[in-house]
Order: sequence, then C-alpha cells, then structure tokens
Amino acid sequence: MIERAATEEDVRAVARRARDAAAELAPLPRRAKDAALHAMADALDAATDAVLAANAEDVARGRDTGLNAGLIDRLSLDADRVAAMAQGLRDVAGLADPVGEVLRGYTQPNGLEIRQVRVPFGVIAMIYEARPNVTVDAAGLALKSGNAALLRGSASAYSSNVALVEVLSTAAAEAGLPADSVQLVPGTDRGSVLHLLRARGLVDLVIPRGGAGLINHVVENATVPVIETGVGNVHVYVDAGADLEMAERIVVNSKTSRVSVCNSAETLLVHRAVAAEFLPRITSALQTCGVVVHGDEHFASLAGVQPATDDDWEREYLSLDMAARVVDDIDEAIAHIRRWSSGHTEAIVTRDLDSARHFVARVDSAAVMVNASTRFTDGAEFGFGAEIGISTQKMHARGPMGLAELTSTKWVVTGEGHVR
Amino acid sequence: MIERAATEEDVRAVARRARDAAAELAPLPRRAKDAALHAMADALDAATDAVLAANAEDVARGRDTGLNAGLIDRLSLDADRVAAMAQGLRDVAGLADPVGEVLRGYTQPNGLEIRQVRVPFGVIAMIYEARPNVTVDAAGLALKSGNAALLRGSASAYSSNVALVEVLSTAAAEAGLPADSVQLVPGTDRGSVLHLLRARGLVDLVIPRGGAGLINHVVENATVPVIETGVGNVHVYVDAGADLEMAERIVVNSKTSRVSVCNSAETLLVHRAVAAEFLPRITSALQTCGVVVHGDEHFASLAGVQPATDDDWEREYLSLDMAARVVDDIDEAIAHIRRWSSGHTEAIVTRDLDSARHFVARVDSAAVMVNASTRFTDGAEFGFGAEIGISTQKMHARGPMGLAELTSTKWVVTGEGHVR
Repeated sequence: MIERAATEEDVRAVARRARDAAAELAPLPRRAKDAALHAMADALDAATDAVLAANAEDVARGRDTGLNAGLIDRLSLDADRVAAMAQGLRDVAGLADPVGEVLRGYTQPNGLEIRQVRVPFGVIAMIYEARPNVTVDAAGLALKSGNAALLRGSASAYSSNVALVEVLSTAAAEAGLPADSVQLVPGTDRGSVLHLLRARGLVDLVIPRGGAGLINHVVENATVPVIETGVGNVHVYVDAGADLEMAERIVVNSKTSRVSVCNSAETLLVHRAVAAEFLPRITSALQTCGVVVHGDEHFASLAGVQPATDDDWEREYLSLDMAARVVDDIDEAIAHIRRWSSGHTEAIVTRDLDSARHFVARVDSAAVMVNASTRFTDGAEFGFGAEIGISTQKMHARGPMGLAELTSTKWVVTGEGHVR
Repeated sequence: MIERAATEEDVRAVARRARDAAAELAPLPRRAKDAALHAMADALDAATDAVLAANAEDVARGRDTGLNAGLIDRLSLDADRVAAMAQGLRDVAGLADPVGEVLRGYTQPNGLEIRQVRVPFGVIAMIYEARPNVTVDAAGLALKSGNAALLRGSASAYSSNVALVEVLSTAAAEAGLPADSVQLVPGTDRGSVLHLLRARGLVDLVIPRGGAGLINHVVENATVPVIETGVGNVHVYVDAGADLEMAERIVVNSKTSRVSVCNSAETLLVHRAVAAEFLPRITSALQTCGVVVHGDEHFASLAGVQPATDDDWEREYLSLDMAARVVDDIDEAIAHIRRWSSGHTEAIVTRDLDSARHFVARVDSAAVMVNASTRFTDGAEFGFGAEIGISTQKMHARGPMGLAELTSTKWVVTGEGHVR
C-alpha cells in the first residue's frame, strides 16, 4: 500500500480541471466521443506491457503487505484482462448516446415550446475498491455520456490506475478531447476522499462502489450528490402453492450461481403451507451445493442446519450461507423483507396472480422478481449494454445504472418574446 | 418564537410512524387518495376559525419578538388564504396520479418481461420557512404521489402548522388513510432538524425550501437524500443583432414582474455590438421601474448607475437591483454565466439560430430560455398543475418539480422460472 496524502487544494484543483473539461465535453456529438473511445481502446492494447508492469508493482506490494489471495486475484491483470478492458471501451462506443434525447416536449397554450432534454451531469467521481478494470469501465461510460471522470481507486491498485489513466487521457487528448476528461484523484489517503466528497459546486455526482463500509463512509461525509450502490440483503419467498421444482431451481440459482455478488440471495422465506414438503427438499439441494443453512425452528430440526439469529436476517453473507425461515402468510414474508432488506432485489415464486400482484405492490426494493432468479438484477441482463453499478437508493436512479442514469436533464424553453 | 427541543428518539419515532404509513399509502389507487384530498379540503374549510385563531397566536408572538413586516405578512392567514389552501388540495386531486406509470417496458430475448414502474418515494420531509400554506401544499402533493409527509415549518408558524396538520391528519384518517400520512416533525430547535437530516433508512427524501442559509445547512448536514431548491442568480444575455424592443420587454419583465422570487433576473449581459444603442435604452427603462442598475464601466457612464463589483455578479438580489455588463461576444457571456450562475435559469435574446443553439448547448442551468422571460421557469407555466419547488441540482430532478418528481421507480421482472 502506498500512502500519498493530498491537500484539499490538490483535490479541488483536479476537480476544477475536470469541470472545465466537462464544459467542453457536453456539446460534443456522438461521433467525436466514439472516436475517442476507439482511440483509447487501441492505446490500451498498445500499452499492454506498460500496464502489466505497473500492475506487477501493485501485486508485489500487495503480497508484501499481506493482502489475501482473493484480493490479489481481483487486483491482478494479464494480457487477456487488458484486452477485455479495451474491448469494453469499443462496446461502449457501440451504444446509443443518451445525450440529446428529448424526454418531454410540448407547446403551452401561450405558444411557448418546452423541451426536457438529456444532458451530461458534468463531473462524475467514482470511488471504488481493488479491481483496476473499473478504472477503464467508468472512464468509458462517463465519457460516452459526456461527463468528465474523476477516479479514485484503492491504494492497492495505485500503480495500475496511474498507468491506465495515463494511457486513457493521452489517447483522449490525441483524439481531440480534453486530456482532463479522465483524471485520477490525487492522494491515496482517507483525507483525499473527504476533500472529494466535499467539493460542492465542482463535483456533480459521486458513485461509491464497494462494501458497506465504503458506502457508509461516503454517505455520512458527502455534501456532493451521491448514489448509493450495491449492498444486497436479497430475499426469495416461496408462496403457498408454488411450483416447488421451479422454487428449488430459483432458490439454488439465486444463492449459488455466484455468491460474491450483490444480487445473490441471502435469505429464504417459505410459506408454511408448503413447508413440510419444501423444507427437506430445498435444504438438501442447498447443502448439496455446499450451502450452510441458518434456519428458524422449522428448519433447525433438519440435519446440518444452524440455528438462525437476528444477525443472520441482517447479514449480506456473500458466501455459501443462507438464512431461512417459515412464514405464516405472504404478509409476514413482506413484513420480514421490510424489516431486514437492503432494498436491492426480492423474488416471489408463486402460481397465484393475487400473490404476485400483492408482493410486487408492497415490496419496496429496486427490483422485484416474479418467478425468476434474483441474479437477473444486472445491467447486461436488463439489456443496458453496460453498467456502472446497481443503485439501492430511490433518488435519481434505482437498480442497474447504464448510460442514461449518468445523465441529468435541462429544460429548453423557446418563445417569440414571451413575457409574464 | 417558541423553542421546543426534540430528542433524536422523538424525531425518529415520528419518522418510523411515517414509514409505516408510507407502506400503506404506496399500493393505494388514485380514487382513495383523491377522496382523502377532498376530505382534507372540506375539513380545512370547516376548521377555518380554529386555524385563524392559531395563526393569530403566531402573528402576535411574531410582533412581540420583532419579526419584520414582510415576514408578518407572509405568516398571516385570513379566510381567503385558508379557502385558497383548501382549493389547492382539490386542484391536486384533479391531477393525474404519477404512481403506476410504466416508464420503460420490454421483453428480453430469453423471455423475461422487464418493466420500470413509477412508485412513491416513501417518506418525504419538507423543511421550509414562514408561509403556512406550504404545510398544506406539501401535504397534498406528497399524499397524491403516495408518500407520507414529514413537515418541518418555521418556529414562527408553529401554532398555525400544529392546527393545520391536526385538521389534515384527522381528515385523512376519517377518509380511511393512515393518520400518520401527514405529520409535523417535533421540536422547533435546530437540533430537531439535524435529527431529521440524519434519519437514514427512515426518510427517503428531504426538500428544503427557503433562503441560501437554510439550503446550505441542509446540504452540509444531511445523510438522507436531498434535493436543493430555489437559489436563483439568473442572467439575461442580449445578443448581437437582437430585436431590442423584444430584449427590453424580456429584461424588464424578467427583473421587475416579481422581484422576490427565484426565477427573477439578477444580471444583464449585453453584446458590445448593440451596447451603444441598448445601454441607454434599457437603463432608462429599468430606472423607470425603480430598478437600481449596478453596471460595469460601460454602464457606469450613464446617469444613476452604480459601479458593480464581484459582489454584484454573485448576489441574488431579490430586490429592485440589477447587475449589468457588456461582453465582447457570446462566449464571454457564457463564461460569465458559468462563473457566477447558481444554475437556475438563463435567457438569451437573439435573432440568430447559431447563437441560440450555441447558448442552449453550453449553458448548464436547469432552464435555458430563448426569447422568453426567465419568469417562465415555474411549475404552473410548464403545465405541471402543481409545484413543490424548483430544483437547482442535477440529480433526480432539475427545474420545476411536480408530482412525477416526488416519485421513484421500481423494476418488476416476470419470468417462468428463469435462472442464470
């Protein structure tokens, strides 16, 4: 880990340059932005060796400072991973430009023409943990949507991020865009993050991506607008009369297809009408996949089930563990979800139309699945082509965020000398 | 002024009740909400005497504590003002319900049906200054959009607000809605506002309405999501070749039609190509309306013009004062606006299509007017039917906020046992 302190003025100077770059980016047509994205991709391919050399420094430092194997893996790049990052930029170039879309447009009785038009935010800051690929993804998505990017990766990836941003900003400049379109936030200490979070008037949006500790730190300290992302205490409810074969498939997929991600399920709720048949079946299926079930008194009589406490209802395991309980009816399931959910994704498995409608209307989460795995809450699965994160707040963006969520709007009003 | 302290637990208890009420409000159909709005309007009419008696207490206390005449006027109710508040509730009942609108809907190649549906935020808190009518307006708009309202008016209107909320919540309960749909935040001290601003997980949105001091206090201290409203350092730019008769009409209307509101103009920028003709003309027209012009060296040679300083470029006068300068070209006007604007509204007066397009694309404000008065940035003028405030931030809502801006969205995904 390298500790580099940055003063408030260091951070604000970089943010001011980003703001100037954003003013140049905002009116650019799609063609200019796509050309820059392709230039950045080509430059990244050409700089593979330099990027890998910088990454090797991070990995060596990580090993020296005792970073665990999982984090070392997330941090490590190879030629394929660099090529994938470059391809990601080309894929973003292929997406439609959200800027300029007219969301509402009409003429008032007095003849005033009113248009609500999508415009870039301006300066978007990302604060994120280990993976260096986020540096490239975030830069590409910000630029495509006409925004300047301020990137603050983890200290453990510092050398990689410096190398990547150098490649991207040089290529952007050679393609005719401001070099400051993509910048690293100076410093690797907590203080530099605080300065960024308090740069009101210079930073239009901060998106933290990482664990609950990072998200909370950002929300507690920011005076600039924030979108909270990615904490997922996700539930699957199996209704009375559900197709139990389908229920098993959805529960197992929701829990086990990738345990470390925010849309994987953490808690199973089962209607008591199907408990006698479903509990042994799902417990066995989960255990076969290596899942430890933390169950209420109904589950606890089954072999291998650990007794659940409130801590189990509250935790986002991100591991092969699942909390499980029986509920008396759908409203008890909804009440449990209201009490413990982080508002990311919940699913119902049911054959009953009333139950589906009741659950959808009353569960207040970013995504509600009916007879589908919770793992579908994802930008690619939603057809967005790209994703910058999954918002768990209700303001501005909720659920997977693509290019449109990186834009604001502007009202354009045209008259012929109209006065009030 | 009454000082009533409230503990964190006092405030959180009220917020928890609001959250429970919000869960009941969310699935309600329009019919139930409209019936409650009419019941609240009728109850307000019936309670006019009690409301006026409570208001008289506030007015008397305001006089005793030396509140100035303007604030006393804003605070004072009479039978007509109470009747207007009741009518406002009936008008809101007549508006379309934003909840349930499908914003995006499509079927993925794998057959998953994906819908993005408008849903209420949940709990919306309003923090506002003197006028008691905001209590009724905010309650009505929050309820119509399916939200529970937490209202924190000024201490000087405390008795009025207590009486109004008592009437509204009783009527809501009699109409079958939760009584806690509309609540006053306990306490009149600054501490109670702080507890509200930090009730993460209980309050989904805070909207401050008032002067820059209030807005800054909220933004600096909130950990719950905030929408900044209403600070307007508004500019009118008169382009080379503009129709000067139209320019005069728009400048005078933008400045003088109502000086105390956020969409009134504060600074005039004039292209030097029309300065010789336009400066004497507009200065005289403004002075005839009682406006003091604070001008740069070009204006300063005219009789009665005060010399402008940076303070004049920065201030939102909200009075019969206007800052004024000559610019070399449209880009200097845009640069001035970027430097000093609060991002509310700016106008260009021009005959030139390139100038109009250039200005619209590069001015980064909530509303950009072409050949129209800045005074049109207003919910009613935009045809929204109601307005809760004017957002000057870029996240979630920008410009006038109506019912749609008081909603979030939810993704509803329907499959037939889909797994990844």
